[in-house]
Amino acid sequence: MNEAAKTLDGWYCLHDFRAIDWTTWKMISSDEREAAIHEFLSLVDKWNTTQAAEQGSHALYTIVGQKADFMMMLLRPTMEELNELENEFNKTKLAEYTIPTFSYVSVVELSNYMAGDSNEDPYQNPHVRSRLYPTLPQAKYVCFYPMDKRRQGEDNWYMLPMDQRRELMRSHGLIGRSYAGKVKQIITGSVGFDDYEWGVTLFADDVLQFKKLVYEMRFDEVSARYGEFGAFYVGNLLPESGLSKFLHVN
Amino acid sequence: MNEAAKTLDGWYCLHDFRAIDWTTWKMISSDEREAAIHEFLSLVDKWNTTQAAEQGSHALYTIVGQKADFMMMLLRPTMEELNELENEFNKTKLAEYTIPTFSYVSVVELSNYMAGDSNEDPYQNPHVRSRLYPTLPQAKYVCFYPMDKRRQGEDNWYMLPMDQRRELMRSHGLIGRSYAGKVKQIITGSVGFDDYEWGVTLFADDVLQFKKLVYEMRFDEVSARYGEFGAFYVGNLLPESGLSKFLHVN
Amino acid sequence: MNEAAKTLDGWYCLHDFRAIDWTTWKMISSDEREAAIHEFLSLVDKWNTTQAAEQGSHALYTIVGQKADFMMMLLRPTMEELNELENEFNKTKLAEYTIPTFSYVSVVELSNYMAGDSNEDPYQNPHVRSRLYPTLPQAKYVCFYPMDKRRQGEDNWYMLPMDQRRELMRSHGLIGRSYAGKVKQIITGSVGFDDYEWGVTLFADDVLQFKKLVYEMRFDEVSARYGEFGAFYVGNLLPESGLSKFLHVN
Amino acid sequence: MNEAAKTLDGWYCLHDFRAIDWTTWKMISSDEREAAIHEFLSLVDKWNTTQAAEQGSHALYTIVGQKADFMMMLLRPTMEELNELENEFNKTKLAEYTIPTFSYVSVVELSNYMAGDSNEDPYQNPHVRSRLYPTLPQAKYVCFYPMDKRRQGEDNWYMLPMDQRRELMRSHGLIGRSYAGKVKQIITGSVGFDDYEWGVTLFADDVLQFKKLVYEMRFDEVSARYGEFGAFYVGNLLPESGLSKFLHVN
Amino acid sequence: MNEAAKTLDGWYCLHDFRAIDWTTWKMISSDEREAAIHEFLSLVDKWNTTQAAEQGSHALYTIVGQKADFMMMLLRPTMEELNELENEFNKTKLAEYTIPTFSYVSVVELSNYMAGDSNEDPYQNPHVRSRLYPTLPQAKYVCFYPMDKRRQGEDNWYMLPMDQRRELMRSHGLIGRSYAGKVKQIITGSVGFDDYEWGVTLFADDVLQFKKLVYEMRFDEVSARYGEFGAFYVGNLLPESGLSKFLHVN
Repeated sequence: MNEAAKTLDGWYCLHDFRAIDWTTWKMISSDEREAAIHEFLSLVDKWNTTQAAEQGSHALYTIVGQKADFMMMLLRPTMEELNELENEFNKTKLAEYTIPTFSYVSVVELSNYMAGDSNEDPYQNPHVRSRLYPTLPQAKYVCFYPMDKRRQGEDNWYMLPMDQRRELMRSHGLIGRSYAGKVKQIITGSVGFDDYEWGVTLFADDVLQFKKLVYEMRFDEVSARYGEFGAFYVGNLLPESGLSKFLHVN
Repeated sequence: MNEAAKTLDGWYCLHDFRAIDWTTWKMISSDEREAAIHEFLSLVDKWNTTQAAEQGSHALYTIVGQKADFMMMLLRPTMEELNELENEFNKTKLAEYTIPTFSYVSVVELSNYMAGDSNEDPYQNPHVRSRLYPTLPQAKYVCFYPMDKRRQGEDNWYMLPMDQRRELMRSHGLIGRSYAGKVKQIITGSVGFDDYEWGVTLFADDVLQFKKLVYEMRFDEVSARYGEFGAFYVGNLLPESGLSKFLHVN
Repeated sequence: MNEAAKTLDGWYCLHDFRAIDWTTWKMISSDEREAAIHEFLSLVDKWNTTQAAEQGSHALYTIVGQKADFMMMLLRPTMEELNELENEFNKTKLAEYTIPTFSYVSVVELSNYMAGDSNEDPYQNPHVRSRLYPTLPQAKYVCFYPMDKRRQGEDNWYMLPMDQRRELMRSHGLIGRSYAGKVKQIITGSVGFDDYEWGVTLFADDVLQFKKLVYEMRFDEVSARYGEFGAFYVGNLLPESGLSKFLHVN
Repeated sequence: MNEAAKTLDGWYCLHDFRAIDWTTWKMISSDEREAAIHEFLSLVDKWNTTQAAEQGSHALYTIVGQKADFMMMLLRPTMEELNELENEFNKTKLAEYTIPTFSYVSVVELSNYMAGDSNEDPYQNPHVRSRLYPTLPQAKYVCFYPMDKRRQGEDNWYMLPMDQRRELMRSHGLIGRSYAGKVKQIITGSVGFDDYEWGVTLFADDVLQFKKLVYEMRFDEVSARYGEFGAFYVGNLLPESGLSKFLHVN
Repeated sequence: MNEAAKTLDGWYCLHDFRAIDWTTWKMISSDEREAAIHEFLSLVDKWNTTQAAEQGSHALYTIVGQKADFMMMLLRPTMEELNELENEFNKTKLAEYTIPTFSYVSVVELSNYMAGDSNEDPYQNPHVRSRLYPTLPQAKYVCFYPMDKRRQGEDNWYMLPMDQRRELMRSHGLIGRSYAGKVKQIITGSVGFDDYEWGVTLFADDVLQFKKLVYEMRFDEVSARYGEFGAFYVGNLLPESGLSKFLHVN
């Protein structure tokens, strides 16, 4: 039996992508629209309070292209809280004018391919904690995609011995590290939770760095031979102050 | 001709996933909504009576993410009863405000890879019976996914000799058993009934155990080389007492 | 050039799967619903007359799960008649409350892998005729799935020499024959007519026999290496006398 | 660099498949329906004029099963004309009651695998011209499917040397020729125009010949190893005189 | 670790494909339709101003077949501008009568497979700049498709050494260059931005050149062994002066 990688698991994570039904949104009065925006901002206020208390985090981004108009990324300590946030949003007035286009359920994950084994409890390590329970950055751009490790003929990640996987991941990690300061990467594990094995969320202030990073990694054996990628989403920061403009219609 | 595994088959099973059309649900009066909830709870009451009489079982879970809002898992002695339950739900008021998003038809299954051959009729064995005709646990979390055994080039499960399959399954089963007390697993067979060969339903009080179990198994040869997985659904227990809150809108 | 199997071809066949739009069905008056059911039963009466005259056959089954609510299987001597039946149904009142979910176009087929070559015209052989122009049984359960023979790398059915295909099919047929009396199987060919190469329709009075037959066959080389399967549909007999109950809503 | 086959290219081709929304079609008055049919027949009259002037051709077929209710096949000298016909139909009253279900954009193509190389300009050869600019037959049945040549591991058509491709196509063509008089085949190329590389449209007065031809070809190496097939559509001739009956509802 | 190709990256690019909902478009008055067209033309005017100032470019094409009715291709210096253009269009009256059918997010890209390495800053090279920040041609026809380089068994582009990739791309580029003057090609990179790795947009005054170019390339090893192609879209130039006619309904 092949040795599985050990993981550290942090907050649960929901990526929730929505398109806006602009036609029906325009049908209601501007007062109703303002009320709907106000109600949504109240929700975000509650999320801000939770974030300030370090009991979770969230991010709001618009999405470029037809796959979605905006994305909410939500981190919480329990699956129940994620579900409640989701349902609470679904019951808002604004939600009536959105169309769910994609979502992803996962949990913030660190793997032991990277980490050295030590005797201390990693869940007590402040550095580890800051990665498992992160406050999401207010970067200008976001990129999200789900992925699998391939199990196909000769290219079967899960049949490789642990040592080989560790070595491959080490080299892979070097690329990631060379983007330190340019791209912040949050890996969330979704085995048993959603259709791919991981979600990758990238944050950057230069959107081109997403392309450079993902492209460079694709030539690395871990991606070249063993990566299977789902759909890619890219978007721009949607600050609360920009919400009224984003949703403004005549 | 290769020897097929023998199976023991218990109750028929329907997994029925639904999204809620919150927009139209909000359009009706709160009295109408209460009546719809009441009608649904009456249905659940009948299911409870059946379950108490050990003539079937059921479970209700909310689902995290956009794939569905809730899931009904129904076990009954005949395919006709499943169909009747399904149609009865479809005719309720509540159903008018739900959108079918996925379903799965199968039958509770035990395979002889695990069981020793004995002379007794396994259908009379109380332990076997409790697994074929189970009362579903009220665990805090559920995970569901359908799966196939792969038939692809060199990785063809159905071309392996029985001995090799039995040995592989034995090792695979050891992982499952190491989660005893943490994860309860119900395997349902769906060859001839639905698009994959099996449905796997996991129950746990710690949702992270789903990820740990499925991930650990993925490194085992049975999954690594021979597993093909469909979509994964994860959710939280929806007790009857929580239904009104879940469906409450302003 | 590899030798193609010869086939005998009988009646053309349409499998027509429909979901019911229960919400709009409930919106009309019970008088209108009764009229719609009556109109549909008149159509079925015409089908019965055709069947009694041995000019075609048909079967009605409810379908378990969300893939469909019921299925009409129609056999007729010409493609035009199938098309007319389909259009005639589409123009009924009942059809307004159904949603097409899947259909399959094919023709009843016997292949010469099974049959011995003889000098007589097989189309005059009464046994062959009863299989090419069958009256569909009123079995309690139905199972339908479309399938291909695989053409993939080393597993390419269509590159195998005729002798090897015949030998493989013979062994495969033995499994089928061991279910004689339990499962009635109607093979329809759909090369050039629909997306897969064959449709398989199984009838049984014990629904578990579908699972046992398909699972046992999957270990046989014909399926294990060369079978590609589409979606599976399973359902319960819908006798005309049960139609009112099936469609009854409050 | 491998030598590409040369092609001769004739009229541009649009296959336009439509389902009918019978429910809304029934909602309008019979006068409105008659007007819509009359308007559509006027369009077809214009197509007939074009066809008589040998400036294009067209065919109308009903389609069996749920994939579509009817299909318009349109041939014209330019892509602009195709687009205009499409838009003109889309603006008719009848189009309001149709649902686009599939379309295919291509151009009538002859390849030099078949043709001998000669010094004359093939575009001046009357036989070649009649194939590049064909008047579509009024055969009783039509079959349409798109296809690719496979590029997969050892089965990569585009890596085969020209001589081998020519020899394989010659043998393949022999099967086609053995159906002369029974099946008329129009090959349209769609590389750069639509999702597959070719569209195949077959016409016959005996619908079973489609199945026999496609099945026999499947055992030929060109199809067996190198063919990838899309969806198959089969249908019955819809003469203008049959349109009112086809669209008649009570 | 395999060496990644270096890229030069220019303007960000959005391909936005729309179908027209002709039925609802016909429901409004011709005055309302004129106002909607006028509003859209004002938008295009702003795009023209931007283009004249060399701060971006755009193109409008109708699309043949059901995949879309028209396509807007938009180039801008930032992802935010693309998003704003998209949202601005979505808020117009015309957009209410369109249905999003496909979009693609990418960035104009030149790769170093082609370019010689030199010491000068390529972003200062006028020739390079004209390709990174192009004014889109007013060619009669457009062709768009997304594509990947394959990573499959023995055909894994990303595992090839740089030298071999460069040599293969050189040969591939020769085909492209042989179409100089006939086909203008704009490559946009979409790794990290959308589901495929590149978008290819071709412009020509003879639509057949798309087919010839793509087909010829398919026999080249880069495409034959390493190309994976998405959907193909083909269309006709939609000049502003043609918009009223295109959208005219009775």
